[in-house]
This record gives sequence, C-alpha cells and structure tokens, in this order.
Amino acid sequence: MGVTINSGRLWDSLMAMAEIGPTANGGSCRLALTEEDAAGRRLLLKWSEALGCTVRVDRVGNLFIRRAGKRNDLDPVAVGSHLDTQPKGGRFDGILGVLAGLETFRALDEQGNLTERPLELVVWTNEEGSRFAPAMVASGAYAGEFSVESTLARRDSAGVSYGEALRQVGFAGDMAVGEPKLHAFFELHIEQGPVLEKEGESIGVVTGVQGMRWYDVSFTGQAAHAGPTPMRYRHDALAAAARLIDRLQGYALEDETGATKVTCGCLEIPQSSRNVIPGEVQLTVDLRHVEEDQLDTLEQRFETELAAAGQRFGVSAQVEHIWKSPVVNFDAACVDAVEAATRASGFSYRRMLSGAGHDSVYVSRVTPTAMIFIPCRDGISHNEAEYATPEHCAQGCQVLADTLLGQANT
Amino acid sequence: MGVTINSGRLWDSLMAMAEIGPTANGGSCRLALTEEDAAGRRLLLKWSEALGCTVRVDRVGNLFIRRAGKRNDLDPVAVGSHLDTQPKGGRFDGILGVLAGLETFRALDEQGNLTERPLELVVWTNEEGSRFAPAMVASGAYAGEFSVESTLARRDSAGVSYGEALRQVGFAGDMAVGEPKLHAFFELHIEQGPVLEKEGESIGVVTGVQGMRWYDVSFTGQAAHAGPTPMRYRHDALAAAARLIDRLQGYALEDETGATKVTCGCLEIPQSSRNVIPGEVQLTVDLRHVEEDQLDTLEQRFETELAAAGQRFGVSAQVEHIWKSPVVNFDAACVDAVEAATRASGFSYRRMLSGAGHDSVYVSRVTPTAMIFIPCRDGISHNEAEYATPEHCAQGCQVLADTLLGQANT
Repeated sequence: MGVTINSGRLWDSLMAMAEIGPTANGGSCRLALTEEDAAGRRLLLKWSEALGCTVRVDRVGNLFIRRAGKRNDLDPVAVGSHLDTQPKGGRFDGILGVLAGLETFRALDEQGNLTERPLELVVWTNEEGSRFAPAMVASGAYAGEFSVESTLARRDSAGVSYGEALRQVGFAGDMAVGEPKLHAFFELHIEQGPVLEKEGESIGVVTGVQGMRWYDVSFTGQAAHAGPTPMRYRHDALAAAARLIDRLQGYALEDETGATKVTCGCLEIPQSSRNVIPGEVQLTVDLRHVEEDQLDTLEQRFETELAAAGQRFGVSAQVEHIWKSPVVNFDAACVDAVEAATRASGFSYRRMLSGAGHDSVYVSRVTPTAMIFIPCRDGISHNEAEYATPEHCAQGCQVLADTLLGQANT
Repeated sequence: MGVTINSGRLWDSLMAMAEIGPTANGGSCRLALTEEDAAGRRLLLKWSEALGCTVRVDRVGNLFIRRAGKRNDLDPVAVGSHLDTQPKGGRFDGILGVLAGLETFRALDEQGNLTERPLELVVWTNEEGSRFAPAMVASGAYAGEFSVESTLARRDSAGVSYGEALRQVGFAGDMAVGEPKLHAFFELHIEQGPVLEKEGESIGVVTGVQGMRWYDVSFTGQAAHAGPTPMRYRHDALAAAARLIDRLQGYALEDETGATKVTCGCLEIPQSSRNVIPGEVQLTVDLRHVEEDQLDTLEQRFETELAAAGQRFGVSAQVEHIWKSPVVNFDAACVDAVEAATRASGFSYRRMLSGAGHDSVYVSRVTPTAMIFIPCRDGISHNEAEYATPEHCAQGCQVLADTLLGQANT
C-alpha cells in the first residue's frame, strides 16, 4: 500500500513555520536555541503530538519524534533535517526536510497506513553553526564526532554557552546522545546550487558529499614603486597570486566531468597602493572533488602551481593546510532505494554529489544514509531570496515518503 | 676653468638638513609648509646668504636663490629640487638636488669662479603632495599648469589651506609665479629604482619621464556558494581579474626592452568569504611606457585582455580612465650637456627614463631641462631606509656642477 502526500498541506506548513522569526524581505531568522528556534520546535511538536507521536529529546537538544509501527522492537527508519536558520535565512533550507517528514506522517495517518518498522522524525540542533560554531555540531555529537561536554560548552558571540541556551529554551533533554539507533536515515534538502534548475531536473539522488580542503596561502615579494622598478627586477606578490588562480581555474575547467572545483574566495593586499607593486598577498584556496584520490591529485597540482607561480615572479610562497573534510559516500542500498522511488514516480532526476555539508554527513558515519535534493531558484540559499516551488517541494516529499515506506516495510 | 666640488661638505650638509624633523628610524619628516619644512628652508637660506646670494620668493612659496654672474642681464642657469619630504621620508629624495646646487655655489666661491650667466638655486614647494595633493603643485604653477589661486586654495586633511600655511611659516612671497625666466634647469635626484645599482652604474643621464595612465577596473559576476556551484555555471569575478593580471604581466615581461610596465597595486573583493565565489572585484591598473604611441598600443592590449577575461569567466568588466600623464622628453641639448659632463668625468653611466614624476616634468614645459640620477640602495625611497652613498652623491654633484658651469659660460 502506497502513500500520497498532500502538496497544499506541505506548503501551508512551510509557510506557517516561516512566520516564526520572519525577516523584512520574506526570509526567516531562527538562530539555534533562541526563542524563535524554540517557537518553531514547539509548533512542530504541537503538530506531531496531534498525530499521536511520542517525543524524546537528547542531551544536546536533538528531537526524536516517533510514529509507532507494527514492530516497535525494530530500529526506526528515520527522516529529518534542521529548523534553525542563518541570520537572514530562507524558508526551505533544513525546514523542508523536517516538514516533509511531518507531511509523510500526516499522509500515512490520513490513509490508515501503519508501517512495519516505526518511523522517527529527527530535528538536529544548530545545523547552521551561525550561533554556535561549527556547523552540524549536534548531529556530529550524535555520531560521536564531538563529545557531549564539548558541545554543551560551545559559546556564542555573547558568551552564552550551548548548554545554558538549551536550558533557557526548555530543550535540554535527558536521552543519551547517540540514542536511538536508526535503521536508516533520509534527508530531503534544497540543492543550494544551480545544477537541477539549469538542467531541468526535478530530483537529485544524492550519492554522497564531495571532499573539501581549505588552505591559506601567503605570497611574499618586495613592495616597490611602480614607476622606477623595471618588470625584470620586480617581486610582485599579486602577479604570483594571479598566476596561481588562473592556472587552478584552467585546471578545474579542463575537467569535463565537473568533479573538480577550485575557489579562491578571499584575496588581500596589506597596505596596498595604486602605484606600489604589491609586496605581500594573502589568498584562500578551497579545493573540492568527489573522489578522495583525485582530491590528492588536485592538492598536488595546487602545490606545484603555487611553487611555479612563486618562482616565476621571484616571490616566496607559503601554504597552510587549515581544514579538510573527506569525501562521503552514502549507503549504496539507501541511494538505490531513493533512485527506485524516484523512477517509480516518473520524475526526472540525476544522481549527484552534494557540494555542501549536511547533518547527513555525520549521521552517515553511524547509520545507512542517503539524501534527496530538489531544485532551488538560481541556486541561491542562506539568503532571504531562497525559493523552491510548491511542485518541487511536493515531488521531493513524495519521493521521500515512498522511500521511507519502502524501507519501513522491508 | 673647472670646479671641484667638496664631497665631505656636501655630505655634512645633507646630514645637517636631516636633523630637522628627524624620524625614529633615521629618516626625515618635513611635510610641506610645516614648521619643520620652514626650518629646513631657513637653514638653506642661512647657508646661501653666507655666500652673498640674493633670495626671492614667489606667491606659491618657491625659493629662487641667485648667485650673480658676469652678465646679470642674461637669464640664469638654474638648479634645484625640493626640501619637503614624505611623512616617513628619507634624507636624499629632493634634498640632494637642492644641496648639490648649494655645494656647487660654495665650490665656485671657494675657487673664485664667476660664471658668465648668473646661477639660480630653486626650491620648489610641496613636491611630495603628502600634505597638499597633488604632487609637484608649485612647479606646476610655475609652468602655468595650475593657477595661483587654485594652488593657494588647496587644503590639507586638517582643512588648512596652502595659502594660510604659507603665511604662517613666513614664505608667502610677492614675486609673480612664473618669474624669473630660466635659461635652463637641471635636477639631480636619487633614481628611486634599482636599475643603476643592479647594473653597477654611477650616473643616469635622464632623457625624459615615461608616460603613465591609471585605470579603475570593476568585474561584476555572481556571488555563489563554492560547494554546490559547478565551475561551468560560475561567474567568478576574481578568476577574471586574475586572468587579466596574468595576461598583462606576460605581455609586459615579453618586452625585452623593458619599456613596458604594468602594475596592479590594489585588488579588493567586497564582502569576501572563503567559501563564496567572488561576485565582485575592484582592481587598479597602472600602465607606463617610454613612448606615447606604444602606450596607446599597451592601452589597447589592456582593453582587449579585459574584455577577453570578462568573457571567459562570464563576468562583466568595466573600466574607468582616471588619470594620464604623457611621455616627457627632456631638452636634447640639456641631456647632451649632462652626458658630455659625465663622460668627461669618466664615471660609468647610462641614458635612462625616469619612472616617477619630478618637478622637472612641469619645469620642462617652459624651460630647457634635464635630470641626473644616482643609484639609491635597493631602489628604495619614500622610506626612512632610503640611502645613497657619499661617493655617489659626490659623483652626481660633480656632474651637476660641471654641467651648470658649461651652460653658464656658453
């Protein structure tokens, strides 16, 4: 027996949630563990309790909302995401994944559908990391990446600890972090990139998350007056940085698979002046790839180009490796289940990697996991202008519901 | 009858002048028309009056210190530069050109040498432009480039006008600006670049000043998250800027004559973030060449590369032409006179262009002019570490004295 989700009801719940912490330009502001975040959670709990669900809260505030099945001795099939937002966040990032889980529960109830395994709707705390850095800290704690104590001790910019904030808003639970064990976990999310929209596809079957590595680069040459200093005697730090950036762009663009990504987001020239040859440049480099060994190759190429750029312009080049996140491959059976549900629905789709991190990255370390993407307008997120159509939200929700049902009945 | 300058006396006067407005690290701070600048001028006037020179001051504070000749009805042969400094300036930039003129007068006096034409030692006001922008404003007024009224009305950052400052320090003269007419003008200066030092030459016979053009460039693409945005859908403003810089560097370095110079001194990314593709970049471009038509060609190449860089990365490129200074060619006879004096002395030398602006640029519009360069350590100036050896100062001064003598007796 299948389940048919209600597109209008899903949309109405998204819009109702967006009324909590509304921003001037149509977005939402529900920073983690603020009164607005708590109000969003309470609205979800009101809706969930109306369905007869039971609620548990762990020590870092993760919510576990259970819809009973026929075999409550079995681990639940789980769905979820987060309700917190960026300071000027949108109405979909995270929220869609939670409310699509709720809509699945509602549709099952309405259609008298009791699954074999229980279902668990999970709300992970502080996914955005805007209030308490880093991002995804509570799903990380669930997966054993961070200790409970260190998580509760993290402080916001006002000096308030995560633990204090949790108590203030009434979401300091007593369930052990890491409980309950989940049979599988599925997360529906907007893509946060332009690929599905540009390519006219409705569903992204997400097979994993690309690996990423962050570097700080410093070029040190010699500041000198632009006028009297011949080109051949210069030590131009900006020329070296430009050569590095141009070579890395060329290398990434040559990769026709699109799997190689290079971004230089920040470039600074201390004490710059129009007619002074830059003596120093600081540059950030962000390398991403879908395969770990190719990320190694990309890193080697970066270091080769860095040395070559420095040498060409008589500039010393230093690099600091500041962060890395390995390639994540989601569970093959979970990915196949999402793909099968998508095919059965007839929606156009593609397999793809996530470019950004999600709670699913940590959850996948301890639970078979997969994700489902839908298009978002112009690839924009973390922005009040973030938008996904009611139709795409409904399609994503239907694929999610079908997947959950399939997993809970096998 | 020749003249032999006194190396030790020249050096002592340089060091004595540096005691006025000394800075912590061995430089000088005598911003134009401050009490320190005035004290420097008074020291020079005390030395000059001891030689029996007569002093006139024009309405913008330029000092004209005359040593009489046999034929005082003839226009004088002039020598000079400036005594004002950058906020953390050195002991030589400008000062050498003035004190080498003084030393020439002293040596002639000592050696009982009366020239046919009178000699005129000129101190131009506010050459540096650090207090009152732009630079070289008083030699510009002398040459008719700026009106007296607009010059006197320029204000420093505290709101004090040039005219007020001139009166406060007692150097508001009454001689008409543009007076007296000069038969020829010679300026000795440190090179402010590395060429003479690197190539082991003592004297630069300066044939003119390279032309320069300044541009503000804006690249406008689309900011987007680094993770989810494929390379082929990006509009990366920094990638376009890097391409432009790299291509311009390549073009300038290919010019084996060294006549082409390209400098990008400032690059800014508004609201940059490590994992956001830069949506906007502002860049300054400074193009220089020794020939005006080649500067046109360089400008065309710049505009072609700018458009190509924008097109490659899907970024719009705007350019604003903000300033230009044409190529200056000094008077051929004056240049030849400097070269002849240098050859006669046996010092190693090269003909060269000045990369930076000097009072001689404006003076040359109304007076036959040439300049003499000596090496400065590491090409550094506008810096407390600025240094020229006593030997190079003496060599430059001897060439200057011989040139003045030759010009004043023909």
